[in-house]
Amino acid sequence: MSELRLNRATKEWIIVATERAKRPHQFQAESGKEKLPPYEPSCPFCPGNEKKTPPEVYALRKKRSFPDQPGWRIRVVTNKYPALDPEEKMAKISGKFFRTTSGAGKHEVIIETPRHNKSIATMSLKQVEEMCLVYLRRYLVLEKDKRFKLIIIFRNHGVTAGTSLRHPHSQLIALPLVPASIRHLLEEAMRYYDDHGSCVFCDMTDEELTARKRIILENEKFVAFHPFASRTPFETWIVPRKHNAGFGNISQDEVKSMAMVLKHVLKKLYEKLGDPDFNLLVRTAPLKDAFEDYYHWYVQILPRLTTPAGFELGSGVYINSSLPEETARFIKK
Amino acid sequence: MSELRLNRATKEWIIVATERAKRPHQFQAESGKEKLPPYEPSCPFCPGNEKKTPPEVYALRKKRSFPDQPGWRIRVVTNKYPALDPEEKMAKISGKFFRTTSGAGKHEVIIETPRHNKSIATMSLKQVEEMCLVYLRRYLVLEKDKRFKLIIIFRNHGVTAGTSLRHPHSQLIALPLVPASIRHLLEEAMRYYDDHGSCVFCDMTDEELTARKRIILENEKFVAFHPFASRTPFETWIVPRKHNAGFGNISQDEVKSMAMVLKHVLKKLYEKLGDPDFNLLVRTAPLKDAFEDYYHWYVQILPRLTTPAGFELGSGVYINSSLPEETARFIKK
Repeated sequence: MSELRLNRATKEWIIVATERAKRPHQFQAESGKEKLPPYEPSCPFCPGNEKKTPPEVYALRKKRSFPDQPGWRIRVVTNKYPALDPEEKMAKISGKFFRTTSGAGKHEVIIETPRHNKSIATMSLKQVEEMCLVYLRRYLVLEKDKRFKLIIIFRNHGVTAGTSLRHPHSQLIALPLVPASIRHLLEEAMRYYDDHGSCVFCDMTDEELTARKRIILENEKFVAFHPFASRTPFETWIVPRKHNAGFGNISQDEVKSMAMVLKHVLKKLYEKLGDPDFNLLVRTAPLKDAFEDYYHWYVQILPRLTTPAGFELGSGVYINSSLPEETARFIKK
Repeated sequence: MSELRLNRATKEWIIVATERAKRPHQFQAESGKEKLPPYEPSCPFCPGNEKKTPPEVYALRKKRSFPDQPGWRIRVVTNKYPALDPEEKMAKISGKFFRTTSGAGKHEVIIETPRHNKSIATMSLKQVEEMCLVYLRRYLVLEKDKRFKLIIIFRNHGVTAGTSLRHPHSQLIALPLVPASIRHLLEEAMRYYDDHGSCVFCDMTDEELTARKRIILENEKFVAFHPFASRTPFETWIVPRKHNAGFGNISQDEVKSMAMVLKHVLKKLYEKLGDPDFNLLVRTAPLKDAFEDYYHWYVQILPRLTTPAGFELGSGVYINSSLPEETARFIKK
């Protein structure tokens, strides 16, 4: 028997296909994952190779060290092959039927550590805190730019998650427009707010805390859980308890707390599943909606344990071959 | 310099990242693709193994041959691990916050040929015609079932496209609900219709025919092109000239014509790119909207030449590293 579940926040239906169900441990990544060295001479993100990247726009580095030289702990550079053009003017749409814009945008790379073979799961808590702090600092700088409407922070871990460079890094893209899919998400959240007088993400977190079946971790500021209607096995949401639509509004305490939960969640995945590939997304409101009552920023972790195929592409409905209650229990065990 | 392009029908923005541009020939699949034998004794879809699948629900077979025995040219069976339950009653949503339904659905497999190593690109035109005919016949049977609201026909070619069995097959899933993403698509098409008094898919086809830069093939009944705002390199749309929202309404002549264009398009991809993995989707309106003026069914082919990563997952915006004008020229050369 299969069950369809609705994610109330994203309005996505998912199918829990128990006929195809796998036990949580069956998702363990095949062993024999390539071991990386701590330093890789040809890697443009390793210390000493700073000239192989565009100049740094920001860094946390030793007091007496210089830009684009070793001595950094975290380094932010423009992507060498940026998806968008930082020099462009405000987006202006042209074309009668075939609409196009040479929109301005920013595409930055946050090199999270000098060590080639680290990942959030194996970094020190201090390092993860600094990483989250840099996420926030870059966000705050870019949100001042009037040309940008939405800032996406993401991290691709592993080849199946779309990474091309193995050195640990996150990315940040500032977009000159709000994509339709985000607009739809906001509209659905707005409707929920109209109907219930509350934020659907706040309600979801409360309901997950009441159900207590899918919680991975909670602290004073965040709750991490495998959502009732998870798209993929081990999908994890890290939701701030405090209602807040925009990532840019978070406090220093929240940054620290976020780092703690993030590290814990990713360490568990690393240990229990053998370093699976994943995407990490900071989902935040468009800049103009950063103070709305109906939207709520959060971190979404999507492990790449299954391949979305034609059905998912054609319907937007995901077939999940595991039960979030079981994966959550497995992670906490 | 990068360019953002809007797909007027899906309302998706895509980024053509010319900084990262690849020449079309650079997408050729690495050689050394596994060669398959024409018959594979352990394959449940190969002739002689009919008992390894659930009983056939439909087949095109030799006159004096029997169900679940060899002699078939195309065979339709229920998926052994169906995503949905055919015995369930009409979907009824329950749960206060955590909405769930044990919705009814059908999940069928269309085994396209007895030959283990064929694909649409290498099948005879007659075989592809029969395959399209079976698509239509199963669609017509299932659309009569009052429990179903949307029928998705799809095909996963190759491992990166999510296939687990290599024997050529398509799949059909009848859903007891209309997913939000499809609803949004229809609403956007409706708005276009309100604004322009015409179907956005009809207009797009006309505009592509006028521009003549991205057309792959046209015949009396269909037009195939790489859309102006293609999500992925070599994305191809096969759009019927005749306005029609529902796949179930097509004529026998359209079936034949569809087969011809489909085979041509996939043969070209096969020859030019070396048998790339792809997903094929028959995108059609929910059953209740099958005669609407604002939606239009079509076939979408999405080659799996790049990996959607965190940015795509977080924004719904795709970064396409090729120009559809160039890929179309390359295919036609």
